Amino acid sequence: MKRLRGFASDNNASVHPDIIQALINANEGHAVGYGDDVVTERTRLLFKEVFGESVEPFFVYNGTGANVISIQALARTFNAVVCARTAHINVDECGAPEKISGCKLLPIDTDNGKITVEQIGAFMHGFGFEHHAQPKLISITQVTELGTVYTIEEIRKIADYVHGLGLYLHMDGARLANAAAALECSLADVSFNAGVDVLSFGGTKNGLMFGEAVVFANAELAENVKYIRKQSTQLHSKLRYTSAQFEALLSNELWLKNAKHANEMAQLLAGEVWEIEGIEITQPVDSNGVFAIVPKAIIPKLQEEFFFYVWDEARSEVRWMTSFDTTKEDIQEFVAVLKKAMAE
Amino acid sequence: MKRLRGFASDNNASVHPDIIQALINANEGHAVGYGDDVVTERTRLLFKEVFGESVEPFFVYNGTGANVISIQALARTFNAVVCARTAHINVDECGAPEKISGCKLLPIDTDNGKITVEQIGAFMHGFGFEHHAQPKLISITQVTELGTVYTIEEIRKIADYVHGLGLYLHMDGARLANAAAALECSLADVSFNAGVDVLSFGGTKNGLMFGEAVVFANAELAENVKYIRKQSTQLHSKLRYTSAQFEALLSNELWLKNAKHANEMAQLLAGEVWEIEGIEITQPVDSNGVFAIVPKAIIPKLQEEFFFYVWDEARSEVRWMTSFDTTKEDIQEFVAVLKKAMAE
Amino acid sequence: MKRLRGFASDNNASVHPDIIQALINANEGHAVGYGDDVVTERTRLLFKEVFGESVEPFFVYNGTGANVISIQALARTFNAVVCARTAHINVDECGAPEKISGCKLLPIDTDNGKITVEQIGAFMHGFGFEHHAQPKLISITQVTELGTVYTIEEIRKIADYVHGLGLYLHMDGARLANAAAALECSLADVSFNAGVDVLSFGGTKNGLMFGEAVVFANAELAENVKYIRKQSTQLHSKLRYTSAQFEALLSNELWLKNAKHANEMAQLLAGEVWEIEGIEITQPVDSNGVFAIVPKAIIPKLQEEFFFYVWDEARSEVRWMTSFDTTKEDIQEFVAVLKKAMAE
Amino acid sequence: MKRLRGFASDNNASVHPDIIQALINANEGHAVGYGDDVVTERTRLLFKEVFGESVEPFFVYNGTGANVISIQALARTFNAVVCARTAHINVDECGAPEKISGCKLLPIDTDNGKITVEQIGAFMHGFGFEHHAQPKLISITQVTELGTVYTIEEIRKIADYVHGLGLYLHMDGARLANAAAALECSLADVSFNAGVDVLSFGGTKNGLMFGEAVVFANAELAENVKYIRKQSTQLHSKLRYTSAQFEALLSNELWLKNAKHANEMAQLLAGEVWEIEGIEITQPVDSNGVFAIVPKAIIPKLQEEFFFYVWDEARSEVRWMTSFDTTKEDIQEFVAVLKKAMAE
Repeated sequence: MKRLRGFASDNNASVHPDIIQALINANEGHAVGYGDDVVTERTRLLFKEVFGESVEPFFVYNGTGANVISIQALARTFNAVVCARTAHINVDECGAPEKISGCKLLPIDTDNGKITVEQIGAFMHGFGFEHHAQPKLISITQVTELGTVYTIEEIRKIADYVHGLGLYLHMDGARLANAAAALECSLADVSFNAGVDVLSFGGTKNGLMFGEAVVFANAELAENVKYIRKQSTQLHSKLRYTSAQFEALLSNELWLKNAKHANEMAQLLAGEVWEIEGIEITQPVDSNGVFAIVPKAIIPKLQEEFFFYVWDEARSEVRWMTSFDTTKEDIQEFVAVLKKAMAE
Repeated sequence: MKRLRGFASDNNASVHPDIIQALINANEGHAVGYGDDVVTERTRLLFKEVFGESVEPFFVYNGTGANVISIQALARTFNAVVCARTAHINVDECGAPEKISGCKLLPIDTDNGKITVEQIGAFMHGFGFEHHAQPKLISITQVTELGTVYTIEEIRKIADYVHGLGLYLHMDGARLANAAAALECSLADVSFNAGVDVLSFGGTKNGLMFGEAVVFANAELAENVKYIRKQSTQLHSKLRYTSAQFEALLSNELWLKNAKHANEMAQLLAGEVWEIEGIEITQPVDSNGVFAIVPKAIIPKLQEEFFFYVWDEARSEVRWMTSFDTTKEDIQEFVAVLKKAMAE
Repeated sequence: MKRLRGFASDNNASVHPDIIQALINANEGHAVGYGDDVVTERTRLLFKEVFGESVEPFFVYNGTGANVISIQALARTFNAVVCARTAHINVDECGAPEKISGCKLLPIDTDNGKITVEQIGAFMHGFGFEHHAQPKLISITQVTELGTVYTIEEIRKIADYVHGLGLYLHMDGARLANAAAALECSLADVSFNAGVDVLSFGGTKNGLMFGEAVVFANAELAENVKYIRKQSTQLHSKLRYTSAQFEALLSNELWLKNAKHANEMAQLLAGEVWEIEGIEITQPVDSNGVFAIVPKAIIPKLQEEFFFYVWDEARSEVRWMTSFDTTKEDIQEFVAVLKKAMAE
Repeated sequence: MKRLRGFASDNNASVHPDIIQALINANEGHAVGYGDDVVTERTRLLFKEVFGESVEPFFVYNGTGANVISIQALARTFNAVVCARTAHINVDECGAPEKISGCKLLPIDTDNGKITVEQIGAFMHGFGFEHHAQPKLISITQVTELGTVYTIEEIRKIADYVHGLGLYLHMDGARLANAAAALECSLADVSFNAGVDVLSFGGTKNGLMFGEAVVFANAELAENVKYIRKQSTQLHSKLRYTSAQFEALLSNELWLKNAKHANEMAQLLAGEVWEIEGIEITQPVDSNGVFAIVPKAIIPKLQEEFFFYVWDEARSEVRWMTSFDTTKEDIQEFVAVLKKAMAE
């Protein structure tokens, strides 16, 4: 029998009650469509408070949408985007970045999902050579797809390098809140203050029903974004219901509470797993994901009760994600089942 | 002072309480993402009940998304799509159909937003001639952007003609519910039973928070749609919250109640306007929109209190849309303001 | 039995002997590929002499290539291109402009293939409105697809209007030489001196084996063109053989001799046809094409001996094109056959 | 002082006299445009003789064009193309494959430009998983970009594997003639007889002025290619001049004579270089390219007289290409200069 909650993904989680309440509150009377409403304007100003006065946020439906809008805004079709091979834009968007932006992706092999200036440097050639797609955008994921977190210094170093070459830095921040919680810094410190030019800021994995924000460092970079958002099918007509969720997320530090809790649950889980002989944790548990190699035989047994994904079939590596609604009891029950399976 | 509700668009309306309730109901525990959940499966079966056993629905975020998925599923980049010049795909999607599908649009001038077999016929040449984009898809909007409604016979005639040429019929049904309510027929009768191959079935304009369904006449036509949906940035990770809204909409005839009410409010408004000297209603009031030519001078006065759009600046033609939440009092108050403005 | 030469199209013609000779002359030893060769550099300077010091030419394979490069250079995917409905980019490129540039085309109905400021003006709205593809490029064809020629004043008027709105003017000059010959002016006078921003300058229809040049008014407009040309599959590796043809075309006024001759042959033909009762010439014979309505029955008889195209089946309108290699005897023989057919 | 011929690329070479003659021969009278001419039909039949009765050739301008047409014909935008990281489609086409086909490229690291079934196998997962671009086409280059040649058995093994998964095999045969010459087999044996589904058959690097052929294993695979060719800007209006070159190339074994000679010149060069201490040849000299690591200091001295490219700056690796017009004297003179530089 499947449990109410599993460890498959933070987007398998439910919607936080405060978000539901925000949707109910927004549901009064008519509002002009497509963002010319008071909720959206309030939320826009809130983003400026949180991320910096000069930023320009655009609310969209989902992360793939946010990413392809980011790329189209800062790159032309003959440009290339450098990213980790494990990046969501490279492996989990069915080729949407290439198809919709027309750009080539240049993937970098990494151990832990994080790329470095040295690795980026290996692609920094052929400028002005018309046969090569011209590098223009570097994309990093924070938290990475492997659960690791860039330090602020690491981001700053990449940003400085990239800007020195006249290129831009994109951050896929589907789990930015988890990173800020882990680093105990503000959302601005880990993004725009560290040199990011455009940010896909995630909401869905942190308690929203749907919704992502594409945030630009300044209005100039965002010049054409309203057209790009519309043409990329990412403009919500009843936009107040997207904005309202972000307003709630950024109010009363809900983003932080949710992310911190998810991170803590991963720590709890990792601590327990660490003790179990025969299981190897394969990545630093920086945020809300635990990657581990487990005996192949136990996987089906665990999955009978808890849904989660095998990350690497060959290595028998699994991924356990925690979320804002994961409870201590969930962890305890899971660990109990895990220990039992290991003992058999 | 602006009133709580206006006549700008049915997507300026709020979310129906039953839809809010359905979202709350869906908000329990974890669910597998991207549609492998029980709510989505139930809703899929409900679509088969309502639209016909063979149909295959895919839930997406919005109408532009639904339309570009429809085109990509049934046409290749070298194909052309024939539609009314006033069609949403032609004028209101910032060129998304061309950009994302690669297809050419062939617009037809109409008086009332409806196209005929004769008009379509004028584009049916050049088959096999590689210099011309090859016609493959005919797209009609039901209800049209001018508030008019195709009869079932009119649709059937187009479908037969189109199929006789080996082409497909797409219906942009952003307001299909209003059409079915107006024709007093089922949703199936006015779409698949009349020969439609792929339908963009709208929810947002009939009380949903967000959500549209792309529905294919059969599984064969839908073969690649799951990839196309994902690559077109239209796959919701927490899909149960899209599905749940559609489940509510198709249950207890909510779709019909909402649409019928909106239509009736338009009739009420039209009946009142009809009496006012100096205002000319310019389109048949088949559904929930009233188009009228009014004296230019009164427009700003009306707009002080009620939000609505000028449709054709040159002709001083305005569009007044009603929605599921329009009340009789709204109409009465608006008509009072209108009469007062005309009298001054 | 088919004659050696017909009236189907100036691209059915052969290659001018001077062009063949230029190819032979260029065929010595190795040359750096992709345009870094002395022939290309000489030809580039020759273009500056002919079209103006500030222009930047790029040599490509064909007209469709030249046109899609022009659009991509000056417009983004969310822009619209306004043109005559009869424009080559709209009807004869299998949707390449939409597919490759992502832009929407906004076609204007015309009687004679020429568009006016007034007609363009009807599309100049919705600026800043994200739902509408944003007009950015106006494209005119000189000579038009109907054989008519814009006067310099007509072009200047359009250019001034377009520039006043911050838009650009593209000229599809597949037959620019014929226009300049007809207007008895220089190639620069009828293009850049009249306000054109980017020109597709045709060679193939005026005696080349292949080759078109995309010419920008200045280097700034051409900033990204080398990448766009390569990415659009239009960069010739052995580019010296394209350039050499253009060098020959622009030397010794070959372009003018060829175009003038073709125009004169059309005049000769038109003069003869004018005399024949029962045939109606439907367009001004401004350049090297004659459009005429003829009795349906005679068409197959004529086509037994001379290849040409029916332009409009319904009206029984045909198109007869002359070219640099059309001889007086060709015209006389054709007219003789025509008269015989009319007499039967 | 630069010599008449260098070792930069076989596309820096001139046009073979027989090809020039074929162009002159084709230059008589008018011919229907776009391929409906007798030369093209003859050449099409000749391709069937050479490559197999069932093949369907389409003549295009260049290799990038041939490759993007191949991809579009056999893959949809949500598909992925697997190839060597060094493949021309991956590094030398400015992202045209991604932009024009919409597909993702999945590059494989190799030592020698050749990919194996095992390496391809690492990408053969995620079928049916909508988040991943679906592998559909495997592209191999014959001769590879590193001058190495796949054996017929190697190709057959890949083809069988790929077909077993329901995928297609594309061969970028820009230098297919050199491969066949090296393997002493027919053009068919090393392509379609070995299981290739679609072939980009190169002419430009083997003595043509311009021109490539996209050849499909059968008419069914080529169903939409005429539209794709036109929409991809690769349809030559005066197509007889492309076809005539291919007719000459495939007549009297000109393709073989040219390729064999180029290969022999590379052998001659490699043999001489082999003897020189301090230079290391880095790839098997299978065809007409020699890759070697040379002292950095000598490169500018050599390039004063002979044009060639540095392949890998970091390793001081250079590439010397021979072509049909390379003479023994060219090799001797180059080796003399090389030896002198090494001795200094």
